[in-house]
Amino acid sequence: MRRGEWTGPTKHTVPGYVKCNLVVLPRADAYDFLVYCQRNPKPCPLVEVTDPGDPEPKMSAPGADLRTDLPRYAVYRNGAREEDVTDIRRLWRDDSVAFLIGSGMTFDDPLERAGVPKVKTWVLTTNIPTIPAGKFHGPVVVTMRCWTPAQAIIACQLTSRFPFYHGAPIHMGDPASIGADLTHPIVGEPLEKIPDGLMPVFWACGVTPQRAALEAKIELMITHTPGHAFITDLLADRICTP
Amino acid sequence: MRRGEWTGPTKHTVPGYVKCNLVVLPRADAYDFLVYCQRNPKPCPLVEVTDPGDPEPKMSAPGADLRTDLPRYAVYRNGAREEDVTDIRRLWRDDSVAFLIGSGMTFDDPLERAGVPKVKTWVLTTNIPTIPAGKFHGPVVVTMRCWTPAQAIIACQLTSRFPFYHGAPIHMGDPASIGADLTHPIVGEPLEKIPDGLMPVFWACGVTPQRAALEAKIELMITHTPGHAFITDLLADRICTP
Repeated sequence: MRRGEWTGPTKHTVPGYVKCNLVVLPRADAYDFLVYCQRNPKPCPLVEVTDPGDPEPKMSAPGADLRTDLPRYAVYRNGAREEDVTDIRRLWRDDSVAFLIGSGMTFDDPLERAGVPKVKTWVLTTNIPTIPAGKFHGPVVVTMRCWTPAQAIIACQLTSRFPFYHGAPIHMGDPASIGADLTHPIVGEPLEKIPDGLMPVFWACGVTPQRAALEAKIELMITHTPGHAFITDLLADRICTP
Repeated sequence: MRRGEWTGPTKHTVPGYVKCNLVVLPRADAYDFLVYCQRNPKPCPLVEVTDPGDPEPKMSAPGADLRTDLPRYAVYRNGAREEDVTDIRRLWRDDSVAFLIGSGMTFDDPLERAGVPKVKTWVLTTNIPTIPAGKFHGPVVVTMRCWTPAQAIIACQLTSRFPFYHGAPIHMGDPASIGADLTHPIVGEPLEKIPDGLMPVFWACGVTPQRAALEAKIELMITHTPGHAFITDLLADRICTP
């Protein structure tokens, strides 16, 4: 990724390592965003916050450079998205703070090892509000996966151990009861209904804070391009409940 | 407490509700302290961060007033402790931010219900460093409780579910291997050795961030007096792994 040789998505790549969503904000907006993450730990589980101006995530990937080591970045100015880039060195500032937010992509692999197969993932908006902090607010965005009820139970058990990548589900069953509209997903093909015999399971999603930061119309915000996460050196099986 | 009728310690009082350590700092120091808590979630599990100037913990105890609703407060100016007070209304400022940090006092009650008896608690310094953030740094402070090995196992299982009040233990067995000196506890009677047949179990302690803030010589810092916690409206059994 640093050499620009991998610019594609990271889902189902490098199994076993914690993957993170990235949000880069100016220091002036970082306090409110940090409080927003504290108030909404399920969509915004913070794996690391870097020191202002320092692009190295010293705790989760010593030696890495967050300006070059993601496959692809989304750049937003005052809430408007610019063209994606694969290197943000020219955009990085002395007051840039990077937030690494654990990604649900991480648990696909341990679930598979526990007998719960990898399945399609939808991303959906809900009518559940997050708790605001300063200028940051908005609805909880969720991922949805569908399994048999027995597999769904194992998924609850297993993800409960991993609060650093969204923890236990926030909902199971009827999508409408959390305001999720299957015919208008953010990611995934539109669905008329859940297939018979399958149980949909919903986790809070790292798109939630991105969307809140976007609506706050931050002067300059940089994130990973959806699906193109940062891969840490942390072993997914080891970063469990504090 | 608001009426000044209870100014004593809160250990083993109001069982079933989450108890919190309090740290009040000026907004200027709050960002670094928040990052410090994020980097050290075991000693500093944040239950709530209030908006600057607002003394109401809206999420954990709506209607409460953190300036009057603790039994007793410790006041530090530039790192020097002044006389304790039972009301901080005259010290509260427009830029005061309150941090509520889950207290290990909370788990004595669920442990007892699980068959692990309430025992003496020691507070000890270790040689384990916290991860610094800005001006905040220092060693991890721990609490120590001693049980039979079978009880210690149940304590590990049970507290693992509750990262908001320090989560799983950070050590079991030999105190010397984490630099804990039984002959010089911060709280508790000095001990020569662990009694035969008992297993000491060590949790990260909320005194850790107090001590870090103290050494940072903050202009004005207010905390609960040790042992005199804030009692939230949150049910201890329900605030488990996110």
